Amino acid sequence: MNSERLTRINVETSSRSQLIDITREVRKAVASSGVSGGSCLLFVPHTTAGVTINENADPDVTADITAFLNKKIPLSDPGFRHSEGNSDAHIKSTLTGTSLDVIISEGDLLLGTWQGIYFCEYDGPRSRKLYIKIRPDSG
Amino acid sequence: MNSERLTRINVETSSRSQLIDITREVRKAVASSGVSGGSCLLFVPHTTAGVTINENADPDVTADITAFLNKKIPLSDPGFRHSEGNSDAHIKSTLTGTSLDVIISEGDLLLGTWQGIYFCEYDGPRSRKLYIKIRPDSG
Amino acid sequence: MNSERLTRINVETSSRSQLIDITREVRKAVASSGVSGGSCLLFVPHTTAGVTINENADPDVTADITAFLNKKIPLSDPGFRHSEGNSDAHIKSTLTGTSLDVIISEGDLLLGTWQGIYFCEYDGPRSRKLYIKIRPDSG
Repeated sequence: MNSERLTRINVETSSRSQLIDITREVRKAVASSGVSGGSCLLFVPHTTAGVTINENADPDVTADITAFLNKKIPLSDPGFRHSEGNSDAHIKSTLTGTSLDVIISEGDLLLGTWQGIYFCEYDGPRSRKLYIKIRPDSG
Repeated sequence: MNSERLTRINVETSSRSQLIDITREVRKAVASSGVSGGSCLLFVPHTTAGVTINENADPDVTADITAFLNKKIPLSDPGFRHSEGNSDAHIKSTLTGTSLDVIISEGDLLLGTWQGIYFCEYDGPRSRKLYIKIRPDSG
Repeated sequence: MNSERLTRINVETSSRSQLIDITREVRKAVASSGVSGGSCLLFVPHTTAGVTINENADPDVTADITAFLNKKIPLSDPGFRHSEGNSDAHIKSTLTGTSLDVIISEGDLLLGTWQGIYFCEYDGPRSRKLYIKIRPDSG
């Protein structure tokens, strides 16, 4: 890890809309940093994707989230003018958000029992990346 | 306050959908930290709740927000498969977000005149918690 | 720049709904800070505006975002009670978010190729402001 404590992970997505659990990868970055207290800033450098926290137990939850967003924000809308035809994905990206800051406490992510961290693919399948920046407490 | 400058507050909610003003509690945590410049990271460790900033003056605003979200993201939808029956709350949580970073300047939250910080309950009533991590400037 | 490394920029908006590219202003604040590694916290002190990251190339994307949000979250709704008549803008503000934390690496914003930072006006035209807080790595 460099002095900026910045790492990058790759995320391969397999369908157009998909929430992919990346909790393990983020946790691994925190563990290997040796940082005990601080936070972990996640950043998605794409405009048709996002990052969120939601339920880690029943996969029906993330399936319901993507299905509902697809129904309400459909691929085609008579008002869309963007020539690439993926305006729905850009809208979902803005509504979900592209960054997230998770607290690190006692050397681990401070997540609730049912929380997992998800990379949100809205215009896949693609090869994506996500930055993880570990920020130790300044003391 | 411990070396991680991390505190936890409890939020008791009284209805299924509700925005609860927690500005005073957050401000209190900032004041008691003695930190003059930095930021204040708020984190909700739940998957059917969130945290947001919105108008602090007219309570009709937060009522309009929850009523509109309930109309557009209803409790029941023919597409929902999650057996707990609260997929609407999970969707609202992802759209609202579960963390927020507020600037601390001159020992206080740097909020706009009309801004208040709200805990967003989407599947209450429940006993909830929220983490507050004070981050002083590193100098 | 003061010891809190906090600056404020003004944003003049010209229509009710509008996404305004502020990437250059944010980049300038980062450059003039001399900070090489860290992050840049953006904060909107308004309750009918927001800040987001989205496509910087084709202006049809931001036009599609605002047009779609206006269609789904209209100015008038039979359920709205807030007397100022701008509840739609408050809802859009909560869904977009009022803060954003962007990584600084090698002295510049770590954005994806197609990413730009946008001030989101939902109840203009108005004179708005946005805070930029540069946070260097704590070392």
